[in-house]
Amino acid sequence: MARDEFSLIEEFFGALGAPSANLRLGVGDDGAVVELPPGRQLVVALDTLVEGIHFPTDSAAADVAHKALAVNLSDLAAMAAEPDWFQLSLTLPRVDAGWLEEFARALDATARAHGIALIGGDTCRGPLSVSVQVAGTVPTGAYVTRAGASPGDLVVVSGRLGDAGLGLACVDGHIELPAPLAEDCLHALRRPRPRLELVPFLRAHASAAIDLSDGLQGDLRHILRASGCGARLRRDDLPVNDYIRRQGAWEYALGAGDDYEICCCIPPAGREAIDAWNAAQADCPLSVIGEITPGDFLLEHDGARVDLAQASGFRHFG
Amino acid sequence: MARDEFSLIEEFFGALGAPSANLRLGVGDDGAVVELPPGRQLVVALDTLVEGIHFPTDSAAADVAHKALAVNLSDLAAMAAEPDWFQLSLTLPRVDAGWLEEFARALDATARAHGIALIGGDTCRGPLSVSVQVAGTVPTGAYVTRAGASPGDLVVVSGRLGDAGLGLACVDGHIELPAPLAEDCLHALRRPRPRLELVPFLRAHASAAIDLSDGLQGDLRHILRASGCGARLRRDDLPVNDYIRRQGAWEYALGAGDDYEICCCIPPAGREAIDAWNAAQADCPLSVIGEITPGDFLLEHDGARVDLAQASGFRHFG
Repeated sequence: MARDEFSLIEEFFGALGAPSANLRLGVGDDGAVVELPPGRQLVVALDTLVEGIHFPTDSAAADVAHKALAVNLSDLAAMAAEPDWFQLSLTLPRVDAGWLEEFARALDATARAHGIALIGGDTCRGPLSVSVQVAGTVPTGAYVTRAGASPGDLVVVSGRLGDAGLGLACVDGHIELPAPLAEDCLHALRRPRPRLELVPFLRAHASAAIDLSDGLQGDLRHILRASGCGARLRRDDLPVNDYIRRQGAWEYALGAGDDYEICCCIPPAGREAIDAWNAAQADCPLSVIGEITPGDFLLEHDGARVDLAQASGFRHFG
Repeated sequence: MARDEFSLIEEFFGALGAPSANLRLGVGDDGAVVELPPGRQLVVALDTLVEGIHFPTDSAAADVAHKALAVNLSDLAAMAAEPDWFQLSLTLPRVDAGWLEEFARALDATARAHGIALIGGDTCRGPLSVSVQVAGTVPTGAYVTRAGASPGDLVVVSGRLGDAGLGLACVDGHIELPAPLAEDCLHALRRPRPRLELVPFLRAHASAAIDLSDGLQGDLRHILRASGCGARLRRDDLPVNDYIRRQGAWEYALGAGDDYEICCCIPPAGREAIDAWNAAQADCPLSVIGEITPGDFLLEHDGARVDLAQASGFRHFG
């Protein structure tokens, strides 16, 4: 029976990731049992990646595994939560032991890198997709939402924007990039890094945060809507690679998804903390790209202003 | 952009289900925030239903919504946990407002019926599938696993076995049933009832429990393996409809899935509690169908014994 065959898959996912001190019963029963230490709240997220939509058809199993967990961990980073455990629901067209071994090994590596345990889930037959549910914790009340930004706050992003979008354009054959940049961009697309190192910084300084899954323009708009504000961004302060800057291909920084960097709002008093962070953390640079305002959502460049409040604003941007 | 279109779906799932006293931040941010009352543990499960595998192609949206939540609630029932909240990840081939309204309305109804809140998740494009992650709570240590059965315990099942399997055989055109029975069986298939009313009984009396998603034979085998025991079942004590009994179609009771009844093990001292339950709870009858043994996994009928330890045992059963 197909179901029996698929239940065999459990052997690949028995004891995966790092141990969790809060786990009481893990993989192998109808549910898993966890505890929550006193004084902490649980932060949970659930995201599904579908082949052909969220990752290219025939992607490496290791890349799929990594990305499915990473995009969920990115949600926890944006909430300023420390990851603790996760569940996996894997839908597969067929049982392929080699593919599963590679998937499980990569999932284990990413889980261990972030100190998180696989505690349950299921596997079933169907078109390839991966649902991951993650849980992290925060000291009570210490989570960061999209709703706390105020006029005057600095708009800050981590890392570099647009690399993953360029990588996807390469995969789709829309552009050709020089070899070293192409490699960087494909890596950004296939191996996004959840910015969990920012969690203490966000707790200490951020009034609002979101992770950049759909692109800066759309994702920052979520913050602005939730916070009842506008923003003014400076195009030339966007952290982008030289290709985007030279070609003026700013739409990759503004509208392409999959960067999984953090966009956060920092009250002005936090500017020194940003500088101190940048002096200490070369791997996760923070860039101040603009300010929160009471008004519109604008991008300034060369004395001009572009309205980013419309869904397709970046498309009209030269 | 397709993603924008799909993010619109959130409007259907904003405030759905019953409120949860433990919810601090719900749908609409990168994650949801919940608390856990002191002295309680969290029990979580994650299951995906795929069109064409777990429900027939072109199933009613309401049936898909109900079943996706119900099968997860059934996992909580088997763990003796009270449901609290859930997350939804919905993958859809296209945005169909009518379908989504029906899906959301049914999901809301089932969630409210069980006092559970939708707190987050995502929607995306792809082949139709529904992942639901549920969480419930138990007083610390009060959960029931598959691992506690001992020789002498009674093997007990709730409700009636095989109806959903007969319903699926009707849908697939393999059998024809008289109209009233066909309706009952189709209802069992499309609208499984998570047996959450059994939670207090299981906490008080069960040494082990599992929900019957894959069929009694396979699921009870999980208990036996986890508990290191065998079992002896009496075929004629299996609670089945008259069709199965008359036709000798016992494979539906033993090997067909989707019943979502509870199979539990009750130490002999609990026999009076079973009788008391049955005197009070006409909607959820409990049937004693055999005993846990130190030996093999056997089914007895008419003086004969069938070995149920093999995966395909029921197929050889006359």
